Amino acid sequence: MTDIDVLQRLQVVLAERRNAAPDSSYVAELYAKGADGICKKVAEEAAEVIMAAKDGDKAHLVKEVTDLWFHSMVLLAQFGVGIDDVAAEFLRREGISGIEEKKSRDNRS
Amino acid sequence: MTDIDVLQRLQVVLAERRNAAPDSSYVAELYAKGADGICKKVAEEAAEVIMAAKDGDKAHLVKEVTDLWFHSMVLLAQFGVGIDDVAAEFLRREGISGIEEKKSRDNRS
Amino acid sequence: MTDIDVLQRLQVVLAERRNAAPDSSYVAELYAKGADGICKKVAEEAAEVIMAAKDGDKAHLVKEVTDLWFHSMVLLAQFGVGIDDVAAEFLRREGISGIEEKKSRDNRS
Amino acid sequence: MTDIDVLQRLQVVLAERRNAAPDSSYVAELYAKGADGICKKVAEEAAEVIMAAKDGDKAHLVKEVTDLWFHSMVLLAQFGVGIDDVAAEFLRREGISGIEEKKSRDNRS
Repeated sequence: MTDIDVLQRLQVVLAERRNAAPDSSYVAELYAKGADGICKKVAEEAAEVIMAAKDGDKAHLVKEVTDLWFHSMVLLAQFGVGIDDVAAEFLRREGISGIEEKKSRDNRS
Repeated sequence: MTDIDVLQRLQVVLAERRNAAPDSSYVAELYAKGADGICKKVAEEAAEVIMAAKDGDKAHLVKEVTDLWFHSMVLLAQFGVGIDDVAAEFLRREGISGIEEKKSRDNRS
Repeated sequence: MTDIDVLQRLQVVLAERRNAAPDSSYVAELYAKGADGICKKVAEEAAEVIMAAKDGDKAHLVKEVTDLWFHSMVLLAQFGVGIDDVAAEFLRREGISGIEEKKSRDNRS
Repeated sequence: MTDIDVLQRLQVVLAERRNAAPDSSYVAELYAKGADGICKKVAEEAAEVIMAAKDGDKAHLVKEVTDLWFHSMVLLAQFGVGIDDVAAEFLRREGISGIEEKKSRDNRS
């Protein structure tokens, strides 16, 4: 069983590096580029996800999705939000989805 | 503290729905569109993430990142991989990053 | 020899339809969605260009590039600019490129 | 009146540079990256178009659309097709659109 908590540890690191010198790490460099620079990376990584999918290369797809998530986490951090907010939104939808599925099962019966 | 495990529960649901009728749920509909259809959604959601960032709307940004991650999870599921593989890749990088940071600290001292 | 002037005729049509009823044409519908809606289409068409390229399908690639250019022309029209401005920018760069090439040839000799 | 023929002159240049040394020009460098590298640029430029639109900066939007078209022309050239094919597709649609508009006017009367 893989530890998904790695995302929360990463979030802590991302928050810490917001005040670091631009040349101290890749993440600090990204912050220095500002929101537009990070957005460009998100677009580029989304394109790489699509190309890996088109190649049908699963291992590559996993790496590109990791890159996409990583850069979207940097973008969230740039705006002072993070993975907990995303998880909360997923939880909210899980609740709604459960209710809808229940409704839909009731309607069918 | 938000429960990031929601991603793993979602992965289970996504895997289950791969054999469902196309009109039984939004996810089943996405699978029916095939990898290209899901890729188009990934591109669209990446664009919405960028637009929310440009609007400086944090709450909207969180929702769009959730959409982006959701659709990339559907894409992973389409190829028989998932969040555990992405978490494993993050863990691998965390290890490398720790080693590199250690090296860099050694070099500085 | 194909008539590239088709782009300028299209620009005239796009400008005319800006005041049309939203349900009168596909273009009028796009304008009604506003800049964000048109931007989403640009992102989607860019993804389709990439997928056609990955498929190595030339005929499909040409159609998707046409879609991408079409939607970027609608976006330009939404902001009151157009193909003439893009052509002017290409001309400006052609000039610079010519000068640079000249310089580079002089340096080599 | 701006000369849209600049696109056709550019196409000639793009075709010529396909056999040039990778370090001889920006375009030659792009070709050397292959279709995937050019696709990444298309995705990046599409994101920049969207960001310029969000900024409401017309002059910047024109430049980014120029970049997007330029890189999509390099992609076309990589596959041995070009602006004439795109113009032909626009012309085909112009014909259909004219017919449809005629039909729609006939139906209304």
